[in-house]
Amino acid sequence: MTLFRLDASIRDEGSVSRAVADSLQRGWQQEHAGAAVVRRDLRLDPVPAGAWADAVGAAQTPQDAWTPAQRAAVATSATYVDELLAASAVVIATPLYNFGVAQHLKAWVDMLMVDPRISGAMPLVGTPVALVIARGGGYGPGTPREGWDHATPYLTRIFADALGGEVTVVAAELTLADVKPAMADLRPLAAQSREQAHAAADRTGREFARLVTAAAPA
Amino acid sequence: MTLFRLDASIRDEGSVSRAVADSLQRGWQQEHAGAAVVRRDLRLDPVPAGAWADAVGAAQTPQDAWTPAQRAAVATSATYVDELLAASAVVIATPLYNFGVAQHLKAWVDMLMVDPRISGAMPLVGTPVALVIARGGGYGPGTPREGWDHATPYLTRIFADALGGEVTVVAAELTLADVKPAMADLRPLAAQSREQAHAAADRTGREFARLVTAAAPA
Repeated sequence: MTLFRLDASIRDEGSVSRAVADSLQRGWQQEHAGAAVVRRDLRLDPVPAGAWADAVGAAQTPQDAWTPAQRAAVATSATYVDELLAASAVVIATPLYNFGVAQHLKAWVDMLMVDPRISGAMPLVGTPVALVIARGGGYGPGTPREGWDHATPYLTRIFADALGGEVTVVAAELTLADVKPAMADLRPLAAQSREQAHAAADRTGREFARLVTAAAPA
Repeated sequence: MTLFRLDASIRDEGSVSRAVADSLQRGWQQEHAGAAVVRRDLRLDPVPAGAWADAVGAAQTPQDAWTPAQRAAVATSATYVDELLAASAVVIATPLYNFGVAQHLKAWVDMLMVDPRISGAMPLVGTPVALVIARGGGYGPGTPREGWDHATPYLTRIFADALGGEVTVVAAELTLADVKPAMADLRPLAAQSREQAHAAADRTGREFARLVTAAAPA
């Protein structure tokens, strides 16, 4: 029983997506003491520059003609895929950056998709996947920026539709209210959103542990 | 009168987005001989790894305390912004990669948005912007992958809604039909889509040149 957790925030201290994912991870471990957590942190360990182009090049080249860079890229891609495929449950923790997917996270998705075990193979069927999203502003129905979160629909497309996972979204909004003076009036709403996200993350972690335990062979 | 052209394909030879953008550029130059074209190629010259995190860090740090990496990141960001702001018209040529925005292109957008001349400043009001998109499959209404192109809506959001540009989309579909045996039946449709995209690109380039000429001070 392994939870695979990926973090994409470029911040460590003060990162809301990490804090909310911590709550999910605690819920998972409290429900099932000793259940493993495997982590990948794209802040500390981003996809090497050029790796994806090399992996794509390798996929179109006979293996005995691979360059050293292509060999390294394929090995990196395989490591990412191994981590994902070994997981009983998955949590992807990421901020919304400039209304879109975090660049580090897209680079990791690209590295997965170049592997034939992933693309078109629906490898996450039956696997619960939590998307923990931190949004600096407000994007709810009726707000001026409704529809401007282009990361959550994209990540749902990848993890649910393309890979077959059972996706749950846990989102905290207005995370910049505490640091932006112009957003000071929104601090109570931001605190409420964060509190709700932590509670939802805790529930989701526990639920994932129960689901995975129930599905495990006796 | 300057056309700024950005290419994000990781391929050079065989890249459909580049070929279609070539048609746009030819149209621009044929309508207005001598009009300049400034190019940035993210394949040859990607955003340096870690640069965006450094630029974000710099934005939160007094300038006299910047690290060398932060200084370099700010300089790179400023170069990108200068190129964009100097343009009378813009063309962004990119494939759809794994149903989303090209990672190199998102990294470039992030580098723009960290500059106060860009974010919230609507710097492209009045500027024509062409998004030249190459899609490997078919994403039209009624196809199984309708709605799976998450790059075009995102790029439209950035260039039209966030930056204020006048956006035209020129798209070629089914670009993988020529190389994927399973898509062989789609080759006539692919050829038709490519032909239409080249014609639309030529028209768009000429139209951009006329618009910019008409708007120029006498």
